[in-house]
Amino acid sequence: MQALSFSNPVFATYSIAASLMILKTVGMAFLTVLRMMQIKAGYRSPEDAQRTLLNPKPVPGQVGPDDRVDRFRRIHQNDLENVPFFLVAGLLFVLTGPPLIAAQMLFYGYVLTRLLHFWAYATGQIHDVRATFWTLGVLIVIGMTLWVIWVAATVVS
Amino acid sequence: MQALSFSNPVFATYSIAASLMILKTVGMAFLTVLRMMQIKAGYRSPEDAQRTLLNPKPVPGQVGPDDRVDRFRRIHQNDLENVPFFLVAGLLFVLTGPPLIAAQMLFYGYVLTRLLHFWAYATGQIHDVRATFWTLGVLIVIGMTLWVIWVAATVVS
Amino acid sequence: MQALSFSNPVFATYSIAASLMILKTVGMAFLTVLRMMQIKAGYRSPEDAQRTLLNPKPVPGQVGPDDRVDRFRRIHQNDLENVPFFLVAGLLFVLTGPPLIAAQMLFYGYVLTRLLHFWAYATGQIHDVRATFWTLGVLIVIGMTLWVIWVAATVVS
Repeated sequence: MQALSFSNPVFATYSIAASLMILKTVGMAFLTVLRMMQIKAGYRSPEDAQRTLLNPKPVPGQVGPDDRVDRFRRIHQNDLENVPFFLVAGLLFVLTGPPLIAAQMLFYGYVLTRLLHFWAYATGQIHDVRATFWTLGVLIVIGMTLWVIWVAATVVS
Repeated sequence: MQALSFSNPVFATYSIAASLMILKTVGMAFLTVLRMMQIKAGYRSPEDAQRTLLNPKPVPGQVGPDDRVDRFRRIHQNDLENVPFFLVAGLLFVLTGPPLIAAQMLFYGYVLTRLLHFWAYATGQIHDVRATFWTLGVLIVIGMTLWVIWVAATVVS
Repeated sequence: MQALSFSNPVFATYSIAASLMILKTVGMAFLTVLRMMQIKAGYRSPEDAQRTLLNPKPVPGQVGPDDRVDRFRRIHQNDLENVPFFLVAGLLFVLTGPPLIAAQMLFYGYVLTRLLHFWAYATGQIHDVRATFWTLGVLIVIGMTLWVIWVAATVVS
């Protein structure tokens, strides 16, 4: 059986978790834009102060930092710092041929930590709560990565 | 035939589109640096104000935000928010075994939306123009991702 | 032999270099957090000024830019601008079936350029030193990418 084929349940599990994380990350961009349009603030480019179909009634001060928008930018940035590395580490982990139950726990567990991180960040929970969910997700990535190195090193040496 | 082999025209198409997007994204870094050196402004690290071979005649105020440079940083940042997710979603999409014509339209269509997004952003077009190209690209990524989930869910369930 | 299998030494080499780069990048986040806690400054979210287990004695001015922390953020950001594209370009390069010695030089060479870039940035070397290591890494990515396009174009045409 091919490792990277949807007939391999470990790969199918990975591809669902990876797709959910991709949707979650690009979703942050939509949330940021919706928030900007809702509060009419937090824009970043000078030309965004012009009157357009999406910005029919410009108001002074629309361009500039605003924490109600920047919060979503920070969540988005946190995804950029984490999700791409999960996507590649997960694919390499699939190729080590792990048991399905291990793959399910790690892949879906990662998705869960990111959803909880989003909840904690979006609702302004104290730093330690969001740091806990972030750390759990990072530990999953580190664990998979170390396993990949271990498997690869056995072959290379 | 192997799915991830250059003898598979769908994969070959993906690998060309993916490579073009990688070149486009790292190209933004070069554009940013060239712009900084051209206008002698927009540097970010304190040590960049020192006299070096690449900065032979330092001027006061070289370190600090400057929209002529930050515009390219924003374009670059927009690539970071989008391209890595296209790269992985596209690879997973190849593994679903789509028709070549669908892959060509989606992959090359995505490249086109990103080039048009660059043109709109670099030339300071109104927000709605650049938002349109960005949205079209994101919809391609979302569409491929949903298709991957659909194919994988059929297998897993 | 499968191209994406640990029995392929080129892929095993890639997976080690890729894993090292993933660990390096997520390591930047830990360095940033450690630095913030050490100097009690450079936090970004308003709620991070609250008293918590990880921030037992809050001090005024903890939230806001601080170059001692922002330096690590910039190193991290530079990884985000580079490493994801190395990860995908490297995987595509593996699939072109390169000689093992070429793969080792390019993959481990890339890791080396990023470690030297970290050293140059963290210790505040002049811009030209860190720019040199960055450029060498980018040239490796560009070289692999052009090779992938060449191989794919031969097949597609």
